[in-house]
Formats: sequence, structure tokens, C-alpha cells
Amino acid sequence: MINKLTIIGVGLIGGSLARALRKGGHVREVMGYGRNLAHLQEAVGLGVIDYAAVTLKEAAREADLVVVAVPVGSIPEIFSELTPGLEDGTIVTDVGSVKVPVIKAAQAALGARFPFFVPGHPIAGTERSGVGASDADLFRRRRVILTPEPETDTAAAARVRTMWQATGAEVVTMTAEQHDHVLAASSHLPHMLAYALVEMVVRMDDHRAIFDNAAGGFRDFTRIASSDPVMWRDICLANREVLVPLLRQYRNDLGTLIKAVEEGNGEVLLELFARAKRARDTLLTNDK
Amino acid sequence: MINKLTIIGVGLIGGSLARALRKGGHVREVMGYGRNLAHLQEAVGLGVIDYAAVTLKEAAREADLVVVAVPVGSIPEIFSELTPGLEDGTIVTDVGSVKVPVIKAAQAALGARFPFFVPGHPIAGTERSGVGASDADLFRRRRVILTPEPETDTAAAARVRTMWQATGAEVVTMTAEQHDHVLAASSHLPHMLAYALVEMVVRMDDHRAIFDNAAGGFRDFTRIASSDPVMWRDICLANREVLVPLLRQYRNDLGTLIKAVEEGNGEVLLELFARAKRARDTLLTNDK
Repeated sequence: MINKLTIIGVGLIGGSLARALRKGGHVREVMGYGRNLAHLQEAVGLGVIDYAAVTLKEAAREADLVVVAVPVGSIPEIFSELTPGLEDGTIVTDVGSVKVPVIKAAQAALGARFPFFVPGHPIAGTERSGVGASDADLFRRRRVILTPEPETDTAAAARVRTMWQATGAEVVTMTAEQHDHVLAASSHLPHMLAYALVEMVVRMDDHRAIFDNAAGGFRDFTRIASSDPVMWRDICLANREVLVPLLRQYRNDLGTLIKAVEEGNGEVLLELFARAKRARDTLLTNDK
Repeated sequence: MINKLTIIGVGLIGGSLARALRKGGHVREVMGYGRNLAHLQEAVGLGVIDYAAVTLKEAAREADLVVVAVPVGSIPEIFSELTPGLEDGTIVTDVGSVKVPVIKAAQAALGARFPFFVPGHPIAGTERSGVGASDADLFRRRRVILTPEPETDTAAAARVRTMWQATGAEVVTMTAEQHDHVLAASSHLPHMLAYALVEMVVRMDDHRAIFDNAAGGFRDFTRIASSDPVMWRDICLANREVLVPLLRQYRNDLGTLIKAVEEGNGEVLLELFARAKRARDTLLTNDK
């Protein structure tokens, strides 16, 4: 049982976490903090949080657990402002989609309290955002990746693990470096590709006909291009050292594919498509 | 009411069309033709077709309507073999994802019977294939694009339109050239991008971790990479004159995006992502 949980950034993820823990009776009191008064009012109105704090000092007071659920680009600033108000024994965790830069920011801001920071990332986004889209079941059967450092306090990590398990999530552990590569490939790169496609199509003269006649494939493929632009700008910039080489490799691979299409090389195309289909069909086992 | 409908290629699309028309009582008798005996047996076993023909001559006999539902690359050969057996008054239509090359093949093969060929394309694929995946409701509230030529017989086009409307589809008309550009952008290009991504990821050392930790975004984005490789090789080659410039433009746009990420140009990224999100949210109105 968590006595007081503080959510910094009561959006889709922060709000869904609060809802899940409340629904299961795993938390006594939830305090929220955010930059936007109307959003906080909405969160209180929806019963997602009990109270809103208007300063980070107030938000940190007597908290067992502080969950930082703001866009990755805002995390360093939050850490810096949050630290002076943290009490002994308060555990801090985050939900950022990039882990190495967040850990660096935590080391810089938290200092001696760094062992009580547990880096985390629930793999459970949707293209929707905001507390209005929050859902107590968002994390059910989803993965949460924790990337503890050698200094991370074992009991703190266990408490964060328990919190996520209480939402119905499966918690796994890996290094921050592994996480950032895995997510760059499975999430950050696809987001870039989807944004780029939609942005290209919308510039075409016949873009209305293209959107009007789009089938499920286009809808599914571009769904992530409806994601929050600020969140994705931040992720993209924070993970750019990992992301840029992948983007370059993809662009290079695309060159090979274009050559095969141009030359009418059906053998190369068939082999490539078949390899991709086989991989997706066999490796993406829990397709929903 | 269609007295005898012949489906050449009883797979997902051909099978679903037969099921839809039978379900609504719009057809008396459905004959199927295919290259694979086991698939035809399955189609008869499932009640999708009444009889299987083992020659195209037999398949064409006394048919009101012949629907060619084979991969685009096989259409020219089917047209050539089918033509001698066609009777006066028999209407031929197809379901190919590319229209200009199919029309050229029809002109070459059908000769004087060309006006009774109605080029068509139901925008209703899924990544599944085969008659086992066929579904009477596949076309419900989906679009079917007809691309009649100036020579196309009006009554023949009307009959094909009526057939598709009976499946619950919304039928629209455009030129074959328009169709091939619209589909290249909304379907063929995304398929290429999804195949290329999966194929790149599977070559990575940590590809198991990437697939294991993939969220809904990756699943949705790559769903079309589970599509039938032969079908997509054919579409890609048939429409390559339209597709290659789009692929090149995309690759070029990707270069601009990479540069912005590399330079940490958050403004350019935010603007691009926001433009894409706005376009998708407003233009893709009937999102499912």
C-alpha cells in the first residue's frame, strides 16, 4: 500500500497510473502537480487525483513515491526543482521513453539521493494524450521496463516494481543503454517514419483523395503520427545519438529497396518481403 | 441477382466477395477457379463456392460476371487464357491494386470485348490472406474504386457497381491514373516502408528484445509487413513508375528529418510533427 503518491504531470500515463492504483486499492492518497491549472482541475474533477499541488515543494511533502510523468525534455528541470523538497525515504521514479539522458539528469540533480531514483518506462502509450484519455487498464498485460543503475537502492526498485505489477503490468529489467536502443528501433524510429509519411502526403495535390480512400493499412501505419508532437520532439532530441544512426541505416536500406523496384528485380523484393513477413509473424507473438 | 458468378482466385478478396453476395442472396451460383487444388477444396468445403472449375474455359461458361482476384502479376496471363472462353454478355472485372497496367493487359487480351471489362479495386485488404480468412463483412462500409475507361460499357459498369454495393461497400469512380497515384501514396508506399523497417530490425543483434518489448505502435505500424509477399512484389512492380518517385521523395524528406534530429533542431521537428498530427486528425475522419 502506498500512503501518498505524487504524480508530476497528470496526463495519459500519470493519470492512468493513478487510476489503476486507486481502482485496485493500492494507494491511500494521490496528489497531482502540473503546469496547467485547467488540466489539474480536470484531473480532480475526474477523481484521478485527490488534490493538486501548485508548487513542487508541496507536491513532494510526505510522499512515499513521486512519479515524474512529464515529457522527457522537461524532466531535468523538474528534478532540479523537486530535489530540495524531497524527504528522506521518498522514492522517485519516471516514465520517460528515453533512459540514459534521464539518468544523467537525475544524477546531476538528485546527488546523494540518486540511489532512491528508479528509472522506469511503461511501454503503453497510445496516440491519445491528456488525463481525459487516462484509463485504469492501460498497463494491463503491458510491459514496464525498469533500468536500475548499480547504485540504485534494491528496496526502492522493488517498491516501484510492486507498484507497476499492481497495475497489471509485466515488469522487466534491462540496462538504460539496452532500453534506449530497443526503444529507438521499436518506437522512436517508427514514429519518425509515420510523421514523415503523413507530412509528405499532406503536401500532395491529391491529398484529400489519398486520405479519403485510405484503408486500414494507412490508418494503422500512421496512427502514431497522431501522437503528441512535444513529447516526440523531446524523445527524438533526447535519444538522438541512438536514433540518428538507425535513421541513417533505414534511409540506406530504403535506397537498396528503391533500386530493386526501379530495376524490376522481383526476386530481391520477394525475398525481402518474405523475410519481413516471416520475422513479424513469428517474433511478434502476442499480436493484439 | 447474378445467375452465375465466377471467381478466378478464391483467396481473401475473391472468397469474401462470394460470401458477401451469397449471404445477401444476390447470387444463384458461384464457381471458383484457382491454381491450387487444396485451396479450391477448402473453398468448396467452407461453402464459399459451389463448384470448382479446373479450366478457365469451364470457369467462363455461362458466367454473368467473372471476377479476376489473383495477384496483379498473374492478371495478364489469366486475361489471355480466359478470353477465348468468354460468352457474349459476360462482364469481366478485377480487384487489382494497380489499375493502369491491368487496363493495358485487358486491352491487349480482350480486344473487341474490352468494353465489357470494368476495372475495379476494393480498398479492403488485411494482412491475412487465403480463403480461410475470407469474411462476408470484409467490404462493409469500405470503398471500392472503379476506374472505367471511355470505352467501358455503361451497363457493365453499373452491374459491377451494383454487385459491390450489395456487399455493403461504397463505390466511387476515378481515372486509373488517379487511382494508381492515390494508392501508391496511401498503400503501396506504406507497405514498402513497413517491410523495410521489419527487415532492418530483424538483422539487429537485439532483435528479440526489440520484438518482445514492442508496443501497440510497432504492431500497428508493421501490421502490413505481414501481408502476402507475392501480392506485394506484383503490386510494387506493376506500379513502379508511380511508386519510385514517391519512394525517392520520401527518402529525400527523411534526409531533411535526419538533419533536424542531428542538429537538435527542435523547432523544425515540432513543426513537422504538429503538421502531420493535425493533418491526420482532421483529414482521416472515419478512423476505425
